[in-house]
Order: sequence, then structure tokens, then C-alpha cells
Amino acid sequence: MIYLDNAATTRPDPKALSQAETYYSENYFNPSARYGGGFAVRRAVEEAREELLALIAGEGYELEFTSGGTEADNHAVLAAKRGNAVTTKGEHAAVYESFVHLRERGTEPRFAAINRDGSVDPASLLSLVDEKTSLVSVVHVNNETGAVNDIASLAREVKKKNPRCLFHSDGVQAFGKIPFRLSPAIDLYSVSAHKIGGLKGTGALYKRKGIALPPLIFGGGQEEGQRSGTENVLGILDFLYAASAKFQTLEKDYAALSALRGRIQAILSESGLFTAISPAEGSPYLLTVASESVRGEVIQRMLFDRGVAVGTGSACSSKKPYSRILEACGYSRAALGGVIRLSFCPQTGEEALDAAKLLAETAEEYRRKVSL
Amino acid sequence: MIYLDNAATTRPDPKALSQAETYYSENYFNPSARYGGGFAVRRAVEEAREELLALIAGEGYELEFTSGGTEADNHAVLAAKRGNAVTTKGEHAAVYESFVHLRERGTEPRFAAINRDGSVDPASLLSLVDEKTSLVSVVHVNNETGAVNDIASLAREVKKKNPRCLFHSDGVQAFGKIPFRLSPAIDLYSVSAHKIGGLKGTGALYKRKGIALPPLIFGGGQEEGQRSGTENVLGILDFLYAASAKFQTLEKDYAALSALRGRIQAILSESGLFTAISPAEGSPYLLTVASESVRGEVIQRMLFDRGVAVGTGSACSSKKPYSRILEACGYSRAALGGVIRLSFCPQTGEEALDAAKLLAETAEEYRRKVSL
Repeated sequence: MIYLDNAATTRPDPKALSQAETYYSENYFNPSARYGGGFAVRRAVEEAREELLALIAGEGYELEFTSGGTEADNHAVLAAKRGNAVTTKGEHAAVYESFVHLRERGTEPRFAAINRDGSVDPASLLSLVDEKTSLVSVVHVNNETGAVNDIASLAREVKKKNPRCLFHSDGVQAFGKIPFRLSPAIDLYSVSAHKIGGLKGTGALYKRKGIALPPLIFGGGQEEGQRSGTENVLGILDFLYAASAKFQTLEKDYAALSALRGRIQAILSESGLFTAISPAEGSPYLLTVASESVRGEVIQRMLFDRGVAVGTGSACSSKKPYSRILEACGYSRAALGGVIRLSFCPQTGEEALDAAKLLAETAEEYRRKVSL
Repeated sequence: MIYLDNAATTRPDPKALSQAETYYSENYFNPSARYGGGFAVRRAVEEAREELLALIAGEGYELEFTSGGTEADNHAVLAAKRGNAVTTKGEHAAVYESFVHLRERGTEPRFAAINRDGSVDPASLLSLVDEKTSLVSVVHVNNETGAVNDIASLAREVKKKNPRCLFHSDGVQAFGKIPFRLSPAIDLYSVSAHKIGGLKGTGALYKRKGIALPPLIFGGGQEEGQRSGTENVLGILDFLYAASAKFQTLEKDYAALSALRGRIQAILSESGLFTAISPAEGSPYLLTVASESVRGEVIQRMLFDRGVAVGTGSACSSKKPYSRILEACGYSRAALGGVIRLSFCPQTGEEALDAAKLLAETAEEYRRKVSL
């Protein structure tokens, strides 16, 4: 199995899991328990919080553990309680659908145009921000195209127009992959464990210190009252170990995957069947291509039967016939039907070149069969 | 270590974890991925859903996976969008604090009185239900006293007064422990994995078919749009295996723990220092005692240093000096300061008798030291 669907989810890092093993075998205590065992688990959770903070943030930030990237996005976006809130047409469903819901709560959602590569059009974004804007959310790395938005600069520009609004970014496809640190204009930043070798069911929201969001979930007062519920201790520690490993080799992996992605793209271009949707300067962890000659989901299933797993669009919005995001990029329906997303992890090696060749062959075979 | 704090959290069942191992080692695919690997994971999640449903519910129910009991409680309670909503003074913080929050959303929360053993006073509960009641929530097993509410009968009585209101119960301390099946008047029922040998970070909400709750979390449309976010596949399958094991021996464990609890209670009564707060007919998984001669949290820490873990009240609301629930039961401040909760699991055996003796000795030692 050559697994090239790492943007949907990654294989859990076996080393991180074995480091975290004690949190189900021995240190299983409730972190709220007021005896030695509980105190030790509480310390481990708090140390994980500090270490995850240090990976991308300075002293000015705190971190809230959540059940995943989707909850982190929701917690940030649903804080927009008045006026209007501005986002882009290139957002993951977790942000996009939260914005759609804002209307029911009396906050007007506004959606900025995106470029053909999936990045936000800064002029469109800024034109929507006014004195009544309570929150702006811009995805860091587009999960369907890999386009990287310069969120530091966008946040600064947004704050120039309205210093009081909150700036949030969905960093799920960036965290642990793209060299980046939070800068002060970014108030909120969502990340997910299972996109970088952690377990499904754990995520976090980085928050500039002093920002208290209205809780989504009420109860025992965990996470400073911002997110109640017994902490997913195993998920949190496993997340720390997986993330720490990723950050240790982040620059090296970035360079290696950039080179690999270039070679994969060359193979697919040479086939004459695929054109790249991903921008050349996009995330090296992701290469999305389109072909008017094939149907993406058919190729995807054929490839899986031949030992290669790839994506078509976002796995999360898999019930729609076409990608909402790629449609907003301006692609024709014909091209939208033939989208393949290859996404990588640091362990991806030369076998991905074989997979690309197999993709080209499979697409050619499909094209011939259909044109008979 | 003699672990008698199972109502706070249980040691994860090693067998369940080893059965679920494939969901991090091999079957790590995103259940929304549209190829063989994803389909297989999706099937596993759906089979887990069906099997968990079959444990306590008939055809008339469906099940939504959540990040835990707290989220399940919130999702049910926050559905009360109009008029008033009725609960009890004996609820876990996940329900209680959600009710407190309802006021901000324009729904009037009402709290029924509880008896000295922590069970709800049915007359008080029913007197609060009227034609404007949109939801009633009554905990199944009180997490501090072990008192069992007859929720089937309460739900029927509530529906007689107002057939349109929803009836919810927090079943976190009952599921997998108390012989019980959902009866039609119960619309919503919350459960948690980590209280019965599963992992922290997974829970579920049983829902009578046809009930669509307003989502708390928006995004990719998982869980029929009721709860978005990539499913915690490992947590869900591990929950299934842990729960199935519990249900296989539920009646036998119930009987064995009932006998054991009686013997523990006898040891503590004989010490002359403790009186039982838990009712005789309460859950055999829990025995709460109080002493005016000791401070619960001091005894708790001393015992841990001597190899025994016990609780004082709910671990989740550990920041309050006194238990809100036991105060509502009518206990004096002096008694509230000396509360110890012993909670069991099917693996608890005769060693718990030694722990009870050690508790009595430790309390006596403390009492002597203080009275010097």
C-alpha cells in the first residue's frame, strides 16, 4: 500500500503511540483527581500544553485542547456574536459551515473571493472588513489545493481596518508541515493531531492570552472553563509526541517533499492527461491535479485496488458531487469531475513516483476504455 | 495500587485496546475516504454504532458518537430552545452547567429538589413541568451518591403532563453497570466510554429515531450532520469492545459488587467514624461515606500515599470547596468536608476490603492527630 491521502488522515506515528502508552496502561487517572496519580496526569497534560505552545507561539499565547480541528474551528468562529464576520470561499467545511450557521445567530457571514489556485484574494477579503466586523477567518493552507495564504500579513491588514475584530486561521494543513510561527495579529489558530501522525479525536486552539471565548461545551470547568469534559489524555500526549517529531525534521522534510512533489508533477504533466491545480509555491505536502478525461472517484477506486490510496477532494465534504472550493477557484465542471489529490507525509519516498506513474497509466487506460 | 476511583475514570480495558489495535496500525483510513480502506473503516464505525445500540435500545433508537459524556449531555440539553427546561439539583456539572447556560439563550432553567440520598424528588420534578417545558433531564445514577432514579417511570409521568417535551437522561454512571434498557418515553440518553474501560475522549448520545438536534459543531457533515468532525475511530471501536465485555458479565458483576459493597460498608460503619451517604439500594459500583471527624481531601491524599486511590466527590467539579450535590441533599458543612467516595469496577475484589480497613485506620489516625 502506497498511502498518498495524508491530508485526509495520517497513519498514527507508532513511536509517538509507544511513548504515550503509559497514559492508558499506568497513568490512566482522571487529571482532575486530587491525589498523586491525578496530579501526575495533570502535570503531563500541562507540560504537553506548554510544549505544544512553544512549537509555534511565544509567551503571548495559550492553548485549549479540543476534540479535533473541527471543534477548534467552531469554537473560534462561533465567537462572532455581532455585526458581520468575514471568511473566504476556500475554507474547510469546519469553518465554512460554521460561518453559514452564524446567520441564524444574527451575525452576517461574508465570503471573500479566491484565486484560481485556491488562495484568498486579499483585496476581496479586505473590502469585506468594516467597523462592524467581529471576526475574520482565513485558512492557512488550503486543504484542497495546498495554496498557502500569508495569514500574518492578512491579519495585520485586517487589524489596520478594524483593530477590535478577532483574526482566526485554520492551520490544520499547515501545523507541523510549513515553517511558521504565530505573530501577534493572529488571535486564534486551529490545529489537528491526526493530520500529523497523531490520533483522530484530538486538536487544539491556540489563543492570544486574554481572549475568553464563549464556551461551546459546559460542565466540570476543564480548560479554564473554556472546554469542559474529561481531557483526552492519551490523545493529548500522543499529539505532543507526534508533533514534536514532526517539528524536529520540519525543514528537512519540507525540502525533501518539495523536490519529490516536483518530480511527481513532472510525471503527471508528461502524461498529457493532468494539469496541476496546486500552485508551484504551495505546500509540498499536497499536489492536486485535474483531468477532463477521467472521473476522479473512479480512478481513486481503481488505484486503491492497485495498492495506492489517493484523495479526490476533501474527504470531509465527500457527499457533494463537486468540490465547493475548486468551483470557487473557477474550474469548469468537466475539470471538477476529474480531480485527484495526492498528499504526503515525511515518510513518503520514491515509491510515490511509482504511484504517479500508475496514476497516469490508470487514467490513460480509463480514457481509452471510455472513448471506445 | 488499589484503585477505587472508577467513577472518575477507569483503567482502560487492555483486551479492548488490543482488539482495537488495527484502527491505529492498519485501518487508520479516514472513514469518509471513498476507497476500499475508507469504506472498511466506515463499516467498522457503523457496525460499532449498531452493536452499541443493541446493548440497551430497540429498533426505535439511533446513536450519535461524541467526544464524551459531557458533549453528549450538552448536545441534548442545549436543544431546549424555548420556554423552560427542567432538571434536578443532583446532576453532573455537564448537565447542570448546561442548564445554567440555557438562561442566556432565553430558556428558563428549573431545578427540582433531591432527596437526602441524591435521588430526585418526583413530586418536585413533576410540579416544575408545564406546557411550556421543552426538555426534562434527570440523571440515571447520581455520580456522587450512586442513587438510581427510575427514569423510565419519571419519563412516562413527564410525558403525561407534556407529551411534546424531550426527556433526556445522563446515563454515564449507569451504562454497562446497571441492568437497563431504554423505554420509549426516554428520548435522549448520554453515555461515556472511559467510565467502563474505554478511552477518554469518546461518548455517545442515544436518540429516539426522528429526533434531529441543533448541531453543536458544524463542518463536514459526519454523524448525519448532527456532529461534524473526523470520527475518533480508535476511541469508538475501543468503546464497543469495552462495552461489549461489560454487558457480557453485567448481571454477575452487579451481584458480586453488591455483596462486596455491603461488606465494605460494614467495615466503615464498624469504625464508628463514617456514615453512608449512598442509599442501600443504590448502584453497587459506588459507596459514598461521610465523616464529621476528618477532611476528605486530606484522607484521600494520605490513602494514595498508602497505595489506595479514592474519590472525594465528583472529580470534575473539584474546584469547589463543597459538593453542590451533597449540599442539595441536605448535609451539614461539617459532614460535607469529610466525604469519601469509593467506586468500583468488575475487577475490584477482596483487596477493596483491605482498602476499607486502611481508610478506617487512616481516618482514626487523622482524628487522633487533630484532637491532640
